[in-house]
Amino acid sequence: MERNGLIIVHTGDGKGKTTAALGLAIRAFGAGLKVLILQFIKGARRSGELEALKILGVEVRQLGLGFITKENFSEQKKLARSALDTARQEILSGAWDLIILDEINYAAKFGLLDTSEILELIKIRPPQMHLVFTGRDAPPELIDTADLVTEMKLIKHPFQKGIAAQPGIEF
Amino acid sequence: MERNGLIIVHTGDGKGKTTAALGLAIRAFGAGLKVLILQFIKGARRSGELEALKILGVEVRQLGLGFITKENFSEQKKLARSALDTARQEILSGAWDLIILDEINYAAKFGLLDTSEILELIKIRPPQMHLVFTGRDAPPELIDTADLVTEMKLIKHPFQKGIAAQPGIEF
Repeated sequence: MERNGLIIVHTGDGKGKTTAALGLAIRAFGAGLKVLILQFIKGARRSGELEALKILGVEVRQLGLGFITKENFSEQKKLARSALDTARQEILSGAWDLIILDEINYAAKFGLLDTSEILELIKIRPPQMHLVFTGRDAPPELIDTADLVTEMKLIKHPFQKGIAAQPGIEF
Repeated sequence: MERNGLIIVHTGDGKGKTTAALGLAIRAFGAGLKVLILQFIKGARRSGELEALKILGVEVRQLGLGFITKENFSEQKKLARSALDTARQEILSGAWDLIILDEINYAAKFGLLDTSEILELIKIRPPQMHLVFTGRDAPPELIDTADLVTEMKLIKHPFQKGIAAQPGIEF
């Protein structure tokens, strides 16, 4: 069966960009696809979804330090470059049907990576490989190139009501 | 630890409403919460995400027939009413931390259920229970009541480029 690799973008200021990508990973994995999740910026952190992905055997690599701060900026930049190298290698390896590049848009937004380097990943991929790019403020050139773009738009958030973030739901 | 049950809505014409809800289910399950997924309208259908949820042991019940057609409308309506009863019972049981009412907004949009019946589910729930309502065109009264509302907005879809739906990715 022929497949055309889709270029998928989840962007916008709302919730669900990463969560929908992880849901997609679960769907693809359940359908027998080989799935790799590379998380830019995010650091080693236990979370419900990672525990569940581990149980399933879906590979997730957290390649950053967590939130970007003034203090960790140069280290985050180094790690983002190294994460980009990892992405290149894994894309070229052809070992995966779907690679999720979580928060890579954010890495571009903050100048950790150039947009041209992100677009390069699309050019070098095997034609049947699906790539998902998440993060707010996706570069316009990426949106132009993509096949499937969804904007997750914040309509209402519980912070606005003064409700604290709920464990297992928001993190 | 005190928790306040959140009322979460995923709406809009874009992809990711159900997928993000399933991702949320995975996250919550991985964090040790008890999760139930009730799918309105959708019929028995194998899919990658359901296979994966089954492996994890997350309960999913498909309570409809699939797409609504002229021919199946009255049967879909009956099933939606029965699904609503199931939702009521499971909410009142207090046995769950999170219940996802997938496509229930769609059931309201097509007149299978009344908006007031959907709002009633929120009123009867135990205060610590999280509820997620998915489907395009969420009723405005539901959006008013909700804590966290995300609109998944279609920016670009591969159908527009003439690319067929990809197995393991779009279904």
